[in-house]
Amino acid sequence: MFFHRQELQHQATPERPDAVYARKLQEVLGGQYGEITVAMQYGFQSWNIHLPGKYRDLLYGIGAEEFGHVEMLATMIAQLLEKAPLGITDEAVQNDPTVAAVIGGTDLQHAIVAGAGARPVDSMGNPWSAGYITASGNLLADFTANANAEMQGRLQVARLYHMTDDHGVRDLLAFLLARDTMHQNQWLAAAQELRDEGLEGLPVPDNFPLGKEDRDVSYQYINFSNGQHASEGRWASGPTPDGKGEFSYVAEPPAGVPMPPPTHPDARLYGT
Amino acid sequence: MFFHRQELQHQATPERPDAVYARKLQEVLGGQYGEITVAMQYGFQSWNIHLPGKYRDLLYGIGAEEFGHVEMLATMIAQLLEKAPLGITDEAVQNDPTVAAVIGGTDLQHAIVAGAGARPVDSMGNPWSAGYITASGNLLADFTANANAEMQGRLQVARLYHMTDDHGVRDLLAFLLARDTMHQNQWLAAAQELRDEGLEGLPVPDNFPLGKEDRDVSYQYINFSNGQHASEGRWASGPTPDGKGEFSYVAEPPAGVPMPPPTHPDARLYGT
Amino acid sequence: MFFHRQELQHQATPERPDAVYARKLQEVLGGQYGEITVAMQYGFQSWNIHLPGKYRDLLYGIGAEEFGHVEMLATMIAQLLEKAPLGITDEAVQNDPTVAAVIGGTDLQHAIVAGAGARPVDSMGNPWSAGYITASGNLLADFTANANAEMQGRLQVARLYHMTDDHGVRDLLAFLLARDTMHQNQWLAAAQELRDEGLEGLPVPDNFPLGKEDRDVSYQYINFSNGQHASEGRWASGPTPDGKGEFSYVAEPPAGVPMPPPTHPDARLYGT
Amino acid sequence: MFFHRQELQHQATPERPDAVYARKLQEVLGGQYGEITVAMQYGFQSWNIHLPGKYRDLLYGIGAEEFGHVEMLATMIAQLLEKAPLGITDEAVQNDPTVAAVIGGTDLQHAIVAGAGARPVDSMGNPWSAGYITASGNLLADFTANANAEMQGRLQVARLYHMTDDHGVRDLLAFLLARDTMHQNQWLAAAQELRDEGLEGLPVPDNFPLGKEDRDVSYQYINFSNGQHASEGRWASGPTPDGKGEFSYVAEPPAGVPMPPPTHPDARLYGT
Amino acid sequence: MFFHRQELQHQATPERPDAVYARKLQEVLGGQYGEITVAMQYGFQSWNIHLPGKYRDLLYGIGAEEFGHVEMLATMIAQLLEKAPLGITDEAVQNDPTVAAVIGGTDLQHAIVAGAGARPVDSMGNPWSAGYITASGNLLADFTANANAEMQGRLQVARLYHMTDDHGVRDLLAFLLARDTMHQNQWLAAAQELRDEGLEGLPVPDNFPLGKEDRDVSYQYINFSNGQHASEGRWASGPTPDGKGEFSYVAEPPAGVPMPPPTHPDARLYGT
Amino acid sequence: MFFHRQELQHQATPERPDAVYARKLQEVLGGQYGEITVAMQYGFQSWNIHLPGKYRDLLYGIGAEEFGHVEMLATMIAQLLEKAPLGITDEAVQNDPTVAAVIGGTDLQHAIVAGAGARPVDSMGNPWSAGYITASGNLLADFTANANAEMQGRLQVARLYHMTDDHGVRDLLAFLLARDTMHQNQWLAAAQELRDEGLEGLPVPDNFPLGKEDRDVSYQYINFSNGQHASEGRWASGPTPDGKGEFSYVAEPPAGVPMPPPTHPDARLYGT
Ligand SMILES: [Ca+2]
Ligand SMILES: [Ca+2]
Ligand SMILES: [Ca+2]
Ligand SMILES: [Ca+2]
Ligand SMILES: [Ca+2]
Ligand SMILES: [Ca+2]
Repeated sequence: MFFHRQELQHQATPERPDAVYARKLQEVLGGQYGEITVAMQYGFQSWNIHLPGKYRDLLYGIGAEEFGHVEMLATMIAQLLEKAPLGITDEAVQNDPTVAAVIGGTDLQHAIVAGAGARPVDSMGNPWSAGYITASGNLLADFTANANAEMQGRLQVARLYHMTDDHGVRDLLAFLLARDTMHQNQWLAAAQELRDEGLEGLPVPDNFPLGKEDRDVSYQYINFSNGQHASEGRWASGPTPDGKGEFSYVAEPPAGVPMPPPTHPDARLYGT
Repeated sequence: MFFHRQELQHQATPERPDAVYARKLQEVLGGQYGEITVAMQYGFQSWNIHLPGKYRDLLYGIGAEEFGHVEMLATMIAQLLEKAPLGITDEAVQNDPTVAAVIGGTDLQHAIVAGAGARPVDSMGNPWSAGYITASGNLLADFTANANAEMQGRLQVARLYHMTDDHGVRDLLAFLLARDTMHQNQWLAAAQELRDEGLEGLPVPDNFPLGKEDRDVSYQYINFSNGQHASEGRWASGPTPDGKGEFSYVAEPPAGVPMPPPTHPDARLYGT
Repeated sequence: MFFHRQELQHQATPERPDAVYARKLQEVLGGQYGEITVAMQYGFQSWNIHLPGKYRDLLYGIGAEEFGHVEMLATMIAQLLEKAPLGITDEAVQNDPTVAAVIGGTDLQHAIVAGAGARPVDSMGNPWSAGYITASGNLLADFTANANAEMQGRLQVARLYHMTDDHGVRDLLAFLLARDTMHQNQWLAAAQELRDEGLEGLPVPDNFPLGKEDRDVSYQYINFSNGQHASEGRWASGPTPDGKGEFSYVAEPPAGVPMPPPTHPDARLYGT
Repeated sequence: MFFHRQELQHQATPERPDAVYARKLQEVLGGQYGEITVAMQYGFQSWNIHLPGKYRDLLYGIGAEEFGHVEMLATMIAQLLEKAPLGITDEAVQNDPTVAAVIGGTDLQHAIVAGAGARPVDSMGNPWSAGYITASGNLLADFTANANAEMQGRLQVARLYHMTDDHGVRDLLAFLLARDTMHQNQWLAAAQELRDEGLEGLPVPDNFPLGKEDRDVSYQYINFSNGQHASEGRWASGPTPDGKGEFSYVAEPPAGVPMPPPTHPDARLYGT
Repeated sequence: MFFHRQELQHQATPERPDAVYARKLQEVLGGQYGEITVAMQYGFQSWNIHLPGKYRDLLYGIGAEEFGHVEMLATMIAQLLEKAPLGITDEAVQNDPTVAAVIGGTDLQHAIVAGAGARPVDSMGNPWSAGYITASGNLLADFTANANAEMQGRLQVARLYHMTDDHGVRDLLAFLLARDTMHQNQWLAAAQELRDEGLEGLPVPDNFPLGKEDRDVSYQYINFSNGQHASEGRWASGPTPDGKGEFSYVAEPPAGVPMPPPTHPDARLYGT
Repeated sequence: MFFHRQELQHQATPERPDAVYARKLQEVLGGQYGEITVAMQYGFQSWNIHLPGKYRDLLYGIGAEEFGHVEMLATMIAQLLEKAPLGITDEAVQNDPTVAAVIGGTDLQHAIVAGAGARPVDSMGNPWSAGYITASGNLLADFTANANAEMQGRLQVARLYHMTDDHGVRDLLAFLLARDTMHQNQWLAAAQELRDEGLEGLPVPDNFPLGKEDRDVSYQYINFSNGQHASEGRWASGPTPDGKGEFSYVAEPPAGVPMPPPTHPDARLYGT
């Protein structure tokens, strides 16, 4: 069960309206790595988890916070839109490049569809899609997905920080950056703990019988381009992170096998 | 520039057609974590990269291999479909539950749209979307995304392995599992190398000035659910993976701040 | 069968081209509540209807009008685009902020893809999706959907009215506003008539046996947030609109039940 | 802020696994009118609302409940999937039509992608899209949208009720049906209260100056099909629900106006 | 303006219900090349056309017919669904493989969402998207798109013809096949007429100054794979269809140019 | 198998950065008819082809070139973005209309998501979708689709040519225009060769028994609009392109048949 309290985790009030920035901020609300994504991702991971105890509590404990982040960003965006220019109703204004420019940079649906409200979309207006989220039932894979999501998210917030000088907006971003710092660290720590406790290991899934895979190509870097420098990386020699092999470098892909002959399906499919 | 050779990296011929399995295999061809995703993801990362040398060569060297994986799976699927039942043209057949069942489990567009060919879709028929891929320009974030993609991909192939007993199919899956093993290891090694060489670190992006974030909440686990076990994890105490702090556990979220008052946009937006 | 006549229901000619406004107008052509949506929605409702007579004739009678609204808007948009600036081919022009601003505010595909033609998209460029429409086979539910669609549509047109001072455009919008007024009234009247004639009632679907639902929570307002004012609304006390109960107000959600234990699916799915 | 408690509002445990039914139940979790839609819809409406007091508290008070409904359905689906058949690994089994049939009717991503977990998709596997939700900033329009959503939702649950005889599943559906009954009644009552209090009226938006619309066609039923029975409905004569006019019936659309001449955009767009 | 008449262009009544076939038929109603696509495509082409006269009349004259094809298919599908099995409410039935098989092969939303009605989706349940349609403002390009659409459409109908033995369904398909035959011929004839009249030519757009393109590679077949047989085709030697050159065959792609150095954007974007 | 060489087929370096133009160029990279579309389309056609020899080699030989075109455009876009303005961090700058205008016209995700890198999207930010591609297994249909794709693509590049005066960009576009010239000619030649060799003919598919279609309407132009000029086109009289009939012109659609009676599905679907 979820409960709501009419408070925000952190203050979310801009110094002044800025409809162009409101659009930019949509990215971390409704984009591929916005707050809706992590809220829903941690939600589905918690509802599907097979392990009771600390990992399950971790997912539940964080998921609800993220819905609160969605709320803070939506609230901030609605305020940034409060004095958004309605449009151009007078030729003089229409020719004022500053006004026109501002309008050119806004999310038009903020005004036309939402009446100056936040929208569940990214900065280019694409609606949020559940195709963004990951919940596989395998925690090591999913915690790696979560670490990535928090990295991409913090990167985007850091970029957005330099696109405004509004102290109210920056104050909220400073808070979100810190929480992303925590969440990056947390998922990396949790992934390591899963491995330390032997619950899952590399390569994911580590209890698929290794003998069933083609072990002769399990640690080969095979170079399908013509750059030579990849041989200098630690992915090209030395022990592998899974502790089960040694990397090797294959400068040229070995010859392949002939392609199978073309197929001939039922004539009533009218292929040529 | 890309070049094609009419060979396959590994044999891809089933023992017998199986239209139901062909549909399942679409997941690792055209799904969120299928081969099209990694091929396009490594492609965009390589075209956008800022660092010359080994990391760039790594991205180029692997990307082309993945397009070859797309080709192997498409070829395999077309063969699995070769004798796909066309449909039901006779009442006796229509009442044969085995035939009906097989048809119920197929991707109908394999026959109607592609004439027994592979499709750029997942196992439920959703067309592949570029919204699946990640290429942020920050290599530590992106290599983490890549490690996740290879984990999710190998997990799906491992699951698919048990859904067939066709030796030809399993032979291809054994090869793909091994390459996913390599690629998981490789991206984790590359992520570590970036950190060892000081090119990027935690929290990503590590050259955003830490002083600009709310450091007092950067390492707090704040528990928004009522499970108590999350306090037992290494994400709740001890040094953080970024080496810059100590985790702490906050059992109850601190009081928030009041919500800002409702907004009042231009009356001509006709809100209530 | 549908027939076309090369006339428009109402004049649709702007005083002057305005490529920025053309983009805005796309919202009510190809957006979630644009004319394509209502045309296709009334179409599918009429093709699926189970009742002969006046309700069926109503759906047929209105649907074709809406396709004509699509046509009027598309025609208007093409004219608004007639003198759209092609782009920037000269540095002097490129630095003219007015030109740049106009270009910043246009739908780029109007020029690049459609050659100054209307597009089947909304104001942010999202292609129209059949996922917007509703046709459930239950007329009371669907007429309520229709009333909502006409309300949202009229609201958007009213907002757009203030974003231009072109008399030709406003003349068309004045016509569309009036038709939306009619259609709002019509669907509300039709919904009421369904109830008056006993064809359907509240709660929809009203012939699902009420005894099969948990009647003890059928009229409770349960407050999952901490605001106290919802108790003052007519949804919190007094008779319910379906005439079958009395609203009550529950200030705190009652205790829930324990969550079921985590699941343990087949080991070959490689969960953790 | 949102908080989570590890309890469910109502018991959600099936008597026995049923992977085919799990797929069907996805519709009311992740479909156009599933629980994710209402949870997110009420969320965005509350974050964008302009009125303090009872309407705002209403939106907040209900929104969090809906996220709990998402959780109950996801939990139920994961349990229905617990013993889902993994696939076909043996020719004898492959020819068992019952097993094949079950597999034909499942959501393949439940196994391959989620490892027997719930997915944020509808019953046909389409990922949930934020394009489903409505939050316009106008409460009368939005409460009508909400009433429609609860009608469509209850209709779908009623249909699903007859597609299983599992007492555990039916017990949860009985609870959800009752809550949908409440929510239908509540939004209709709230819409009426808005009108009674003069905050908004018909036609929405009622403070757009009526004089600016084409009043001569504001209450005409214009018949674009050839059925004659629509003239018998209350939408064709008598006073209009907005109290501002009288319906009239126009059996044949009046003649239109000539289409404007074709456009001639810049030659460098290479139209024909 | 569009007008509707309550008649069908051709009879559309199945001999008996068949919910599995209803799903298959969705492909040519709401798929990439279904009737909605051609109806909307010809619509947008006609609303955007720049030429008065026969080409414009052609587009208008055909577009309305296609909306009638949408209606015939929707009507047929609703009838095919009339006796669709509701689901499984009894264990005995649940174990009847024939019933289970049928249910496995249906579009679940036909029952749950549409109450046994047609849906605006393809055979795999993907909602129709306006991203399918083409209307570029260049008639030679668009008539080629139209010819392709009618070819793909007729191909799909031909495949569907063999998936049923219902005489009523086949009777409708025989009609649609004939109309697709007409429309293929018509668009090819119209494309030829455009060329004969000098309104447009090859390469499209033919009034872009040829001198501005790299004429030395305008007619070279450059072989990026290792098959040698492409040299045998008429695309590898002889005069080109545009009448402006001679094909030549280049067995190996010439050496390329070095890639530009990696970019170095603003440091505040935090790339690596 | 695919191989990569770190070279470009043609130089791809702009004279100067231009973030607004970078966004426009996305159309021919990631739009409906961009290079990703043709690369993937030719790929799937080659993997599904049934004919060995020259047609198969043609598809393989061209597909890899198109992936190289994707790479050239992505590389160009990244360079156009190199000095993209980061945003507005200072009030003075914020009020500079030129800067604001430029920002209004950019793809915001270029900066926020990709850190000044190319994106797999079109000029309006829609992610590339596999729903754009066509691979039916019937080569005459597919080569017509390919000819259309190259026409639409060349048209878009021609339009883009006039939207910049950057010599580096125009130099690349000149190359792409020439290759599109080749590919248009090539697919038309290949389509003709298929017909000349009797592998496929008109109407597609030509081996579906013509006797099974309604031959009486196979060559009728039926006029569903009221324009009279369509009778003047060669699609209205004379021999048909398939050589199997004579066009005729039907000025008024013949009377249709009555619609079937409404359906009455199972009462438990709760229709009205
Ligand atoms: Ca967050
Ligand atoms: Ca791979
Ligand atoms: Ca309308
Ligand atoms: Ca609910
Ligand atoms: Ca047709
Ligand atoms: Ca190309």
